[in-house]
Amino acid sequence: MNKNQLESLLQKVKQSEVTIEDAMQTLSSLPFDDLGFAMIDHHRHLRVGYPEVIYCEGKTIDQVIKIFENMVSRQVNILATRASMALYEAIKPLHMEAKYNEAARVITLTHEAIPVTEDYIAIVAAGTSDLPVVEEAYETAVAFGNRVEKVVDVGVAGIHRLFARLDVIRGAKVVIVVAGMEGALASVVAGLVDKPVIAVPTSVGYGASFGGISALLTMLNSCASGVTVVNIDNGFGAAYAASQMNKL
Amino acid sequence: MNKNQLESLLQKVKQSEVTIEDAMQTLSSLPFDDLGFAMIDHHRHLRVGYPEVIYCEGKTIDQVIKIFENMVSRQVNILATRASMALYEAIKPLHMEAKYNEAARVITLTHEAIPVTEDYIAIVAAGTSDLPVVEEAYETAVAFGNRVEKVVDVGVAGIHRLFARLDVIRGAKVVIVVAGMEGALASVVAGLVDKPVIAVPTSVGYGASFGGISALLTMLNSCASGVTVVNIDNGFGAAYAASQMNKL
Amino acid sequence: MNKNQLESLLQKVKQSEVTIEDAMQTLSSLPFDDLGFAMIDHHRHLRVGYPEVIYCEGKTIDQVIKIFENMVSRQVNILATRASMALYEAIKPLHMEAKYNEAARVITLTHEAIPVTEDYIAIVAAGTSDLPVVEEAYETAVAFGNRVEKVVDVGVAGIHRLFARLDVIRGAKVVIVVAGMEGALASVVAGLVDKPVIAVPTSVGYGASFGGISALLTMLNSCASGVTVVNIDNGFGAAYAASQMNKL
Amino acid sequence: MNKNQLESLLQKVKQSEVTIEDAMQTLSSLPFDDLGFAMIDHHRHLRVGYPEVIYCEGKTIDQVIKIFENMVSRQVNILATRASMALYEAIKPLHMEAKYNEAARVITLTHEAIPVTEDYIAIVAAGTSDLPVVEEAYETAVAFGNRVEKVVDVGVAGIHRLFARLDVIRGAKVVIVVAGMEGALASVVAGLVDKPVIAVPTSVGYGASFGGISALLTMLNSCASGVTVVNIDNGFGAAYAASQMNKL
Amino acid sequence: MNKNQLESLLQKVKQSEVTIEDAMQTLSSLPFDDLGFAMIDHHRHLRVGYPEVIYCEGKTIDQVIKIFENMVSRQVNILATRASMALYEAIKPLHMEAKYNEAARVITLTHEAIPVTEDYIAIVAAGTSDLPVVEEAYETAVAFGNRVEKVVDVGVAGIHRLFARLDVIRGAKVVIVVAGMEGALASVVAGLVDKPVIAVPTSVGYGASFGGISALLTMLNSCASGVTVVNIDNGFGAAYAASQMNKL
Amino acid sequence: MNKNQLESLLQKVKQSEVTIEDAMQTLSSLPFDDLGFAMIDHHRHLRVGYPEVIYCEGKTIDQVIKIFENMVSRQVNILATRASMALYEAIKPLHMEAKYNEAARVITLTHEAIPVTEDYIAIVAAGTSDLPVVEEAYETAVAFGNRVEKVVDVGVAGIHRLFARLDVIRGAKVVIVVAGMEGALASVVAGLVDKPVIAVPTSVGYGASFGGISALLTMLNSCASGVTVVNIDNGFGAAYAASQMNKL
Amino acid sequence: MNKNQLESLLQKVKQSEVTIEDAMQTLSSLPFDDLGFAMIDHHRHLRVGYPEVIYCEGKTIDQVIKIFENMVSRQVNILATRASMALYEAIKPLHMEAKYNEAARVITLTHEAIPVTEDYIAIVAAGTSDLPVVEEAYETAVAFGNRVEKVVDVGVAGIHRLFARLDVIRGAKVVIVVAGMEGALASVVAGLVDKPVIAVPTSVGYGASFGGISALLTMLNSCASGVTVVNIDNGFGAAYAASQMNKL
Amino acid sequence: MNKNQLESLLQKVKQSEVTIEDAMQTLSSLPFDDLGFAMIDHHRHLRVGYPEVIYCEGKTIDQVIKIFENMVSRQVNILATRASMALYEAIKPLHMEAKYNEAARVITLTHEAIPVTEDYIAIVAAGTSDLPVVEEAYETAVAFGNRVEKVVDVGVAGIHRLFARLDVIRGAKVVIVVAGMEGALASVVAGLVDKPVIAVPTSVGYGASFGGISALLTMLNSCASGVTVVNIDNGFGAAYAASQMNKL
Repeated sequence: MNKNQLESLLQKVKQSEVTIEDAMQTLSSLPFDDLGFAMIDHHRHLRVGYPEVIYCEGKTIDQVIKIFENMVSRQVNILATRASMALYEAIKPLHMEAKYNEAARVITLTHEAIPVTEDYIAIVAAGTSDLPVVEEAYETAVAFGNRVEKVVDVGVAGIHRLFARLDVIRGAKVVIVVAGMEGALASVVAGLVDKPVIAVPTSVGYGASFGGISALLTMLNSCASGVTVVNIDNGFGAAYAASQMNKL
Repeated sequence: MNKNQLESLLQKVKQSEVTIEDAMQTLSSLPFDDLGFAMIDHHRHLRVGYPEVIYCEGKTIDQVIKIFENMVSRQVNILATRASMALYEAIKPLHMEAKYNEAARVITLTHEAIPVTEDYIAIVAAGTSDLPVVEEAYETAVAFGNRVEKVVDVGVAGIHRLFARLDVIRGAKVVIVVAGMEGALASVVAGLVDKPVIAVPTSVGYGASFGGISALLTMLNSCASGVTVVNIDNGFGAAYAASQMNKL
Repeated sequence: MNKNQLESLLQKVKQSEVTIEDAMQTLSSLPFDDLGFAMIDHHRHLRVGYPEVIYCEGKTIDQVIKIFENMVSRQVNILATRASMALYEAIKPLHMEAKYNEAARVITLTHEAIPVTEDYIAIVAAGTSDLPVVEEAYETAVAFGNRVEKVVDVGVAGIHRLFARLDVIRGAKVVIVVAGMEGALASVVAGLVDKPVIAVPTSVGYGASFGGISALLTMLNSCASGVTVVNIDNGFGAAYAASQMNKL
Repeated sequence: MNKNQLESLLQKVKQSEVTIEDAMQTLSSLPFDDLGFAMIDHHRHLRVGYPEVIYCEGKTIDQVIKIFENMVSRQVNILATRASMALYEAIKPLHMEAKYNEAARVITLTHEAIPVTEDYIAIVAAGTSDLPVVEEAYETAVAFGNRVEKVVDVGVAGIHRLFARLDVIRGAKVVIVVAGMEGALASVVAGLVDKPVIAVPTSVGYGASFGGISALLTMLNSCASGVTVVNIDNGFGAAYAASQMNKL
Repeated sequence: MNKNQLESLLQKVKQSEVTIEDAMQTLSSLPFDDLGFAMIDHHRHLRVGYPEVIYCEGKTIDQVIKIFENMVSRQVNILATRASMALYEAIKPLHMEAKYNEAARVITLTHEAIPVTEDYIAIVAAGTSDLPVVEEAYETAVAFGNRVEKVVDVGVAGIHRLFARLDVIRGAKVVIVVAGMEGALASVVAGLVDKPVIAVPTSVGYGASFGGISALLTMLNSCASGVTVVNIDNGFGAAYAASQMNKL
Repeated sequence: MNKNQLESLLQKVKQSEVTIEDAMQTLSSLPFDDLGFAMIDHHRHLRVGYPEVIYCEGKTIDQVIKIFENMVSRQVNILATRASMALYEAIKPLHMEAKYNEAARVITLTHEAIPVTEDYIAIVAAGTSDLPVVEEAYETAVAFGNRVEKVVDVGVAGIHRLFARLDVIRGAKVVIVVAGMEGALASVVAGLVDKPVIAVPTSVGYGASFGGISALLTMLNSCASGVTVVNIDNGFGAAYAASQMNKL
Repeated sequence: MNKNQLESLLQKVKQSEVTIEDAMQTLSSLPFDDLGFAMIDHHRHLRVGYPEVIYCEGKTIDQVIKIFENMVSRQVNILATRASMALYEAIKPLHMEAKYNEAARVITLTHEAIPVTEDYIAIVAAGTSDLPVVEEAYETAVAFGNRVEKVVDVGVAGIHRLFARLDVIRGAKVVIVVAGMEGALASVVAGLVDKPVIAVPTSVGYGASFGGISALLTMLNSCASGVTVVNIDNGFGAAYAASQMNKL
Repeated sequence: MNKNQLESLLQKVKQSEVTIEDAMQTLSSLPFDDLGFAMIDHHRHLRVGYPEVIYCEGKTIDQVIKIFENMVSRQVNILATRASMALYEAIKPLHMEAKYNEAARVITLTHEAIPVTEDYIAIVAAGTSDLPVVEEAYETAVAFGNRVEKVVDVGVAGIHRLFARLDVIRGAKVVIVVAGMEGALASVVAGLVDKPVIAVPTSVGYGASFGGISALLTMLNSCASGVTVVNIDNGFGAAYAASQMNKL
């Protein structure tokens, strides 16, 4: 509710076009549904066809299905992340049009198509093992209406592989770099492009990679300017931020 | 050097317009100067009036002055971060037009003015103690030609202070959130705006803040989408990335 | 045993109302039973109907059952936390009146009802995934005779959801805030109420949440005054402390 | 602004007793002053004589003095924590009635006396080296109008010292336990009293005490129920929370 | 091989009582068997009936059995720690006299009885969940010929339980204290006895106990003198060191 | 592509021996195959019979098989590390000549034998539990054409076992030391030889070994000169580096 | 106060040999003085000439002097650890007989000589930089009446230096091993002797020694049996425990 | 002392060419001097002109001078690392020929020149701030008789700077890579050369670089094969190991 809306509402109260009870209702009510165990936020959908998002981890299958049903009833697009195969198998019979990207662990259900940007987001990944995070980012970016290009297995140990794909990376409006182990790819890419680089550390590695901490620290300490970082394995978050930037 | 330039160069070699020696020179030489202890990179300046940047920490005053001289001789704008008062006092007699923002620990020297954007970056800070980082971000963003608005001391402990300035924050194209201690401000702001939010954890705090780790983790784990994070106290990095986004 | 009791006991010894043997017995014996592997403490029950508590984790089913039997034989209320379904299934045939809250992993057995307070404890939680901790706190607070109100899924990413329930929170005598990921909710709530806020970090999250460390640090560093913190996922401890405060 | 006030305001708008401009002003303005670098919050003072608090660390002496002046001009009590001797020496000539507790690093300025509670807070400390934190807690609790009793140097290595003072501890309504090194005192005290125990880990110790982490972890993992914890060395926070509880 | 033995050997070489080849053999050979994947050390057994020890974790069942066979063939007592039930079931048919303490995860095989000390080691434990570590320490101490007394479930949360058993603890020559969670018991016990106290942190706990780190730090930082510490869950190591002390 | 090759290529362009298109092709193409999800690098094989390496962890069985097939088709030797038994069982029917070292978790497929060095690498290990890492290092070193000697179970607790094998260790050109727990073996060995010592910490241990961190830190802090360190459990990396050194 | 004493006291009360007031006095009073900021414990001195100990770190010079005076007035031996030169210079004019070991940072004042043991404690140190800890241990052990032998600079990097002094080490009843950096010396020594080994990690080192954490972990994970560990740089604690063992 | 020497010694004893006393002397004595607080090891010098090394940190100036004098008296080359300017100023008057590299904090004193290798070690550094570590490595490598080439300020943020110097790096027999912040340079270099790469993390950086931990982890997790790592800032260690490899 911005200043204009507030002024307009008060104006209507003064002119008795709106009762005090209704004004109070408007002022205190906000756009979400209360399911008891979850509050579903409709804000995002107010913008053109953006999906509503369910983060499934830590929720029971029953809980996710109830949230899902609520969303379907309002005819919105849905993006469910960190969704197990078991969850998908429970949802599928109820909503045959739901799709599952197993590597990404993402369920999508599209009610109405959303227009796709001309500019694209490049998702660049160091190794094959980083693919699950790449796919989560990919599904998210696509669900929010972005054109996306993937460049995979171009880690710095064989830097010529990266250079061979450099034109695709340099053509992007925003670049997401996904890397585990030592995570050096983000710095190298950021030194080669002049666009925002969102770095996603992954939990790929062993020993002193400490489940992604090594890559996370590498990215936070990047000597290349223009790198910002999201949580370990957070493909969704990277793509969400990239989508915001791609549409600036 | 892109494909077209490469093709053109080879064409000229074939047509003997360029000698093999010159072609080799062009292919191997790259735009930087070697001072022995430092390689100065001219890339950035190729773009309209962007400053060249010196990160002063860990360099001796002598080294910084030599780098400074090299830049001045090429008539570029200069932005020197993490500059101590002692360093500024050594530079000032040589370059009277150099300016020092003590809180920011930033020296700037402007050779030619750079056009300022219409869109602005909002720098939002939780507390007064975060000001040094705010100022480093401010000087950087301005040096790169951005309009900037500052909103300071609006930490979540008194959330009404934040709401009172919400219109300024919502009007920005990109938002930088600076916070130490528990760093919760980034999540709250990101939940209230629909623009990229760059979070800068600061080392403000004591005990279990662990020099900024607490705020860093908070921001990386933000439940609000659209937050990306830079290193602790990295006002420069946040502003650099914000500038890239502001100019998309 | 306070000074008065000590004086009285000695007086009786002097007046031969109590034999030396009995006095020694009284002075050295203390109210607990020794099961060999566990010492059961009856102190708490001396107060009106408070349950005796078993922390089940790390105990074998056999051990818990023996402790349970000992308590049942003394006709007290019982609260068993961190109880697996398997444990409940072993106890149920023996004590049909035992109840199990699966989300909370809590078994309760009520021998005599305990009076309920007029003031209430509000349990406020950031997300649906925090429900197990909410439920453990709920069962504990109820078992100790407190009125409780739950407010769930009001994380700071959509702060309007929190504001919509603010009156319930502000009406409480003590507030428990349960949050994982970045745990910012505790600071925001503490800034909005003027009552003791007990913060419970949860292990909900991934990557740099480090099993609850991120939320724990956030809460310890809260810039809002009046926040105290308990261990990660320690719903029981939060409710126990809240109960003490609610009855002050 | 509660429901009644909102209803009343809208009523006045409707009856043209309040103009729309004024109503907007009221709805958006909130009780704080903006000094540019700091927002001073008057909320707390609305309650009987409670001091306004300045956390001085990370603020320049100039900044603190300006905040101080603003508060003095509104004739409120002031409590400035983490105040260096240098800061006090800068304030003293301007405000002769300001008092400094050097061990506590606290400046207090009392404009009007605040009534003192009958119930008292006990501050129990393990060692002499913990005194600075004890004193910060003491000054805070007194400034907020609480009766306080101190019990110092009763660490668990000589547990008879603790028992000799047990009646003072048991007589309190709330207990603050201050301990560094291994911090075991909190568990022992909580096992001996039936009141809320707020544990403050201190940075006293060396080697594997890691600046207070050891004591912090000890307190978070306390096997005694009823213990809640604040940040390392946070005497202020413990006393603030204790004051809230003491006045329940 | 001490100085006397060396002198004697050289004397014999000089007097041709020992050939140079034999002397070289004696000087280079050392008392162990090489199984290819393991070198079995017979040193310890040279002392009266002390068992040879196998640490089973990380070894395959086949490897342990081969080491076991080698020891049996030399007719020594055997103590196998961290032995799974599966391992015991593989060994039992081959060596019916082998005994298994399931809680301790220890297999013992006694070839000849070892004399038992008059002085005893007290093993004091905070909670029932610490029993596996208590049992490992117990089996080890007994196998090395020590009299042992166990005092279990006397954690500091109910300190009267500890005091009721204080005479048993004070009667010991060496005290082992086993505790998880906050591990405060070691400090309290060491403050009450004047004998060496060996503290064993256990991994019992959750959240911020970090698998025993909390208890470990507590014990290392003990404010009570005379406490030394072994690795988390290292009941064997504590008992081995205690046995050395008990026999001084 | 070195300077000479570049000059030669440009010469040929000038003399029209090479077309501009072909030159561009040569300059931009690099020796790898793109499988979509993986880029296979042929560089290494250009050297005499060195195997191509697949790191299997985090790759699906399907992905590994496709990479494997690509390599087989080019008739190279293959070394697949971190290969599960399930993976081997999927590959075996397709490539009967593939061999599996179960302890090492390594699959090898030799197309043409590679000459073996005269100098040897010694792999020295502290305990039997370190064998999986020893075997990974062994298979790698052999696959790269090195003679290897293994010295196992010579941890510092019984230092005479180490001395008995010292001549084998001292005869090596490069020494790999594999140790978990406290990892002290690396320092002792490096103090006894005058050759490069590559230390491999292993995750063997429990409690405060923290999955190999303890051994890692020990090795990094070695007071003996000449020790360099690789990641925890990284037998492959140690052997690869040792092979480079052995062939200097 | 043991059972016999309790019985005897009660007997006397009954026979009116002791008044109730006196009995209460006896039962509640304990042997310490309350200085307001410190409780001085006289327990230890009850044993033959043992010194009373002041841990000076974190105490003001004034506080230490007051504690010192109290002790002097009771004519006991004094051992003040972590004493700065400044502190010593404040005490010296008042108590000319106080002695200062600057390396150890220990002040001692001997009122009456204490008999010295025949058995000795060996203090073995890895490097010259560990001397401050060695000296603190030495002063402590001597003050408690132990014969002590020092063996310094025998780190494992040159293990022959250790062997040359092995007879001194093996002759001791208890061995203290002091080492920083990687701390491997403790394991090697414990493998060579059959006596209790108390390991003291020191903060000597840099980088990944993390102020002594590396050495601490090494010692906790020692593969050699019989090693117990104290806090980083805790020479006092090691010597105190060693003294207890030396006198068993 | 190898087998042959042992046999020869025993032969001489048998033939009475060597007395038993002398043989014992030979067997027990080892090549070092005992200064009381330090054991100086002459082993290394037995090889052609290699310097003896003093690690100065943690030693008093007096101690270093005494060690220095002992070495000078034996006419060896000396390399003193981590030497402060104050130390140098104390040594200089006594040994005018001692040289000091201030950036490196290294004192060298050359008694006789040592032959220089033909092969060279390349020391490659990411930034100007890494120079102190570069210089320590340089002085060490030179002191041990190696030819050295330095390539400085070629961090990955501007990868063209690295490529411009690639021929120097590729020409080396061993490469030392020195980098702080995110430390990505080691992986990139190791991917471009086929020689041993020794990575030295530096403490250059701030915030989440954690004094070099970030760079250390990056290097340990390098996805490029052939990288081994030394301690943070350990230029000496890297050069020592490189020297061993350069002379293989």
